[in-house]
Amino acid sequence: MQLQDFGFGTQIRKSPYFDATVRWGAAGFSVYNHMYIPRDFGDPEQNFWNLVNDAILCDVAVERQVEITGPDAAQFVQMLTPRDLSKMAVGQCKYVLICNAEGGILNDPILLKLAEDHFWLSLADSDILLWAQGVAVHSGLHVSICEPDVSPLQLQGPKSGQIMEALFGPEIMDLRYYWFREMELDGIPLVVSRTGWSSELGYEIYLRDSTYGDALWQRIMAVGMAFGLKPGHTSTIRRIEGGMLSYHADADIHTNPFELGLDRLVNLDMEADFIGKFALQRMRDNGITRKQVGLVIDGDPMTGPNTAFWTVNAGGAPVGKVTSAVYSPRLKKNIALAMVDIAVAELGTGLEVLTHQGETTATVVERPFYDPRKRLAATGAAAPAQALA
Amino acid sequence: MQLQDFGFGTQIRKSPYFDATVRWGAAGFSVYNHMYIPRDFGDPEQNFWNLVNDAILCDVAVERQVEITGPDAAQFVQMLTPRDLSKMAVGQCKYVLICNAEGGILNDPILLKLAEDHFWLSLADSDILLWAQGVAVHSGLHVSICEPDVSPLQLQGPKSGQIMEALFGPEIMDLRYYWFREMELDGIPLVVSRTGWSSELGYEIYLRDSTYGDALWQRIMAVGMAFGLKPGHTSTIRRIEGGMLSYHADADIHTNPFELGLDRLVNLDMEADFIGKFALQRMRDNGITRKQVGLVIDGDPMTGPNTAFWTVNAGGAPVGKVTSAVYSPRLKKNIALAMVDIAVAELGTGLEVLTHQGETTATVVERPFYDPRKRLAATGAAAPAQALA
Repeated sequence: MQLQDFGFGTQIRKSPYFDATVRWGAAGFSVYNHMYIPRDFGDPEQNFWNLVNDAILCDVAVERQVEITGPDAAQFVQMLTPRDLSKMAVGQCKYVLICNAEGGILNDPILLKLAEDHFWLSLADSDILLWAQGVAVHSGLHVSICEPDVSPLQLQGPKSGQIMEALFGPEIMDLRYYWFREMELDGIPLVVSRTGWSSELGYEIYLRDSTYGDALWQRIMAVGMAFGLKPGHTSTIRRIEGGMLSYHADADIHTNPFELGLDRLVNLDMEADFIGKFALQRMRDNGITRKQVGLVIDGDPMTGPNTAFWTVNAGGAPVGKVTSAVYSPRLKKNIALAMVDIAVAELGTGLEVLTHQGETTATVVERPFYDPRKRLAATGAAAPAQALA
Repeated sequence: MQLQDFGFGTQIRKSPYFDATVRWGAAGFSVYNHMYIPRDFGDPEQNFWNLVNDAILCDVAVERQVEITGPDAAQFVQMLTPRDLSKMAVGQCKYVLICNAEGGILNDPILLKLAEDHFWLSLADSDILLWAQGVAVHSGLHVSICEPDVSPLQLQGPKSGQIMEALFGPEIMDLRYYWFREMELDGIPLVVSRTGWSSELGYEIYLRDSTYGDALWQRIMAVGMAFGLKPGHTSTIRRIEGGMLSYHADADIHTNPFELGLDRLVNLDMEADFIGKFALQRMRDNGITRKQVGLVIDGDPMTGPNTAFWTVNAGGAPVGKVTSAVYSPRLKKNIALAMVDIAVAELGTGLEVLTHQGETTATVVERPFYDPRKRLAATGAAAPAQALA
């Protein structure tokens, strides 16, 4: 695939790492938050093994930041999410949901608290900049909301700790899971957090001046190569193994937090007001009618992720849809996330899935599919972001 | 380019015409409003000639609709745009700007008034659904805001009138420029408007039930082939010839309407309040510091659109950027839209452009580059949408 194929000229933005990723072998791109993201450095299974055995460096500049500052910033940010932020410290990250007035999910970003009156939302794929600016119009709160010049990289995998130590010195090993620090590397201004979208030990490195994109990428690769670092991309295999959401695929404006089992991100009993509180209270009281489950799908190994939502049947009647599916070469199984009627959501339930190759059988299983806690004792790696953060 | 290259599974939506466009030769896709849009049916120059000589059918389902209904819908929609809507009739379309509180442009949609309390915004590429829902939160107005199941096609080109007559009967010829009708075709529910993004005579056909995507595409192609209709995509060549904006490329949140010469879309003296009124009044009073111009760029014919913003210099000093550029095979010139300092915006000014192939010279010229009024007398076709609508 050539970029020229798109024919869109400058309508889609390029990451500050774009030239570097092309030089390092990026052969295919997708689009996320109006920006190109490399999604092809060769065999995706090899990318998965690079991630789980060593480390990969991923251009995730598409995770655009929404910066909220001003005297009312803390109150405003709390208004944007059902998660209780009252105990959040400066230097901390939190995985949060952004819900609309109906309790539907608009995004599932990482929130960073840079100061008492200074926040970033590190976004999944939707224009929360517009949502937040829109909410602010009649809010009566004093806030400034913009997209700053910030472009994250993800350094993920079991070797990422050693690479970070080689880059930043031994103090970086004190950085706790879901905390961040403002740092410099060769004079390049950064925020460094222990977060990621891989369910592996990992870090996000937020570049705060896009003119250094090439220099930062080169520096990390140069240091990392001795540890087996490879250029890569977020792994669909690993994130489904870890039961992590992909916005638009597994959740959208019509999905509510309870359907995803994310009750812990909704604090309905806190005093503070937030958008969607009434709708979410009603949902909690009334209960849900459908639920996200894990599925193991029988049949030959899938050759790639599903490119359409597959209908899920129970005894021939439709009961839901597969939202994300892939073959895990580690588990040697086709694994999937699906949204199904609550009546068929119990572990062990047998279902049918209409794949693009025909109908097959499937079984409801626990998520995550691969339990990193078994590795924790041995490696010191963290549990998946969305499970604990 | 294969879709599988993206590796994003279901994270990006497919249009209801997706299968039809693949069957009819779509070989490359881009992404717009979180949905695939076909951008490659072979040679883009041939697509241009198909458009200007005959007619093309384009899948523009990516122009998602924001539907605003409810007792306060009219007041709310006026709040969203600086254009005076007080005289807008049911059945009418208007080209409008959506601005934030700072007067920056968030989108440039077509507004359709389906009833006194029922509106659609047919979007360029940004999540105005989130902006509008966000604005509504604290507005105190009674509105419902959603994305309905509506997916437009564009039928554009000088033969489009005859094709529409063959499809809908002779009454369709009464449909005036920037008006629409609710219609049916073989029982398929539609809205049909005389609008488009081509600067040619053309229609948009808004499908109101996505299950009919394949049937509608097939029906139009079957009838249109006798008139020379070809499957196609919006033409970068034709839209730049027509001086039409591409959001993110030629305008973004940091661009204001006056810089684009779109003063006619900003009615600061109307009584009604709208978002950005104060900021836009200040801009009008203070004047602008930069302005969009047309450029003719010297040198060999460009082989495709620019894929980066090119720096524009005057006497060696930077004065702006080329936002969209392409070779027009009709004008036999490289033509471009650029945002430059007001001091160098006069017609005839000589400038330098740093293209990806090196520095060349350019001259400020009038937009649109191709004046359709010369054709109007002969064909009865309309002037470009954004010039008159």
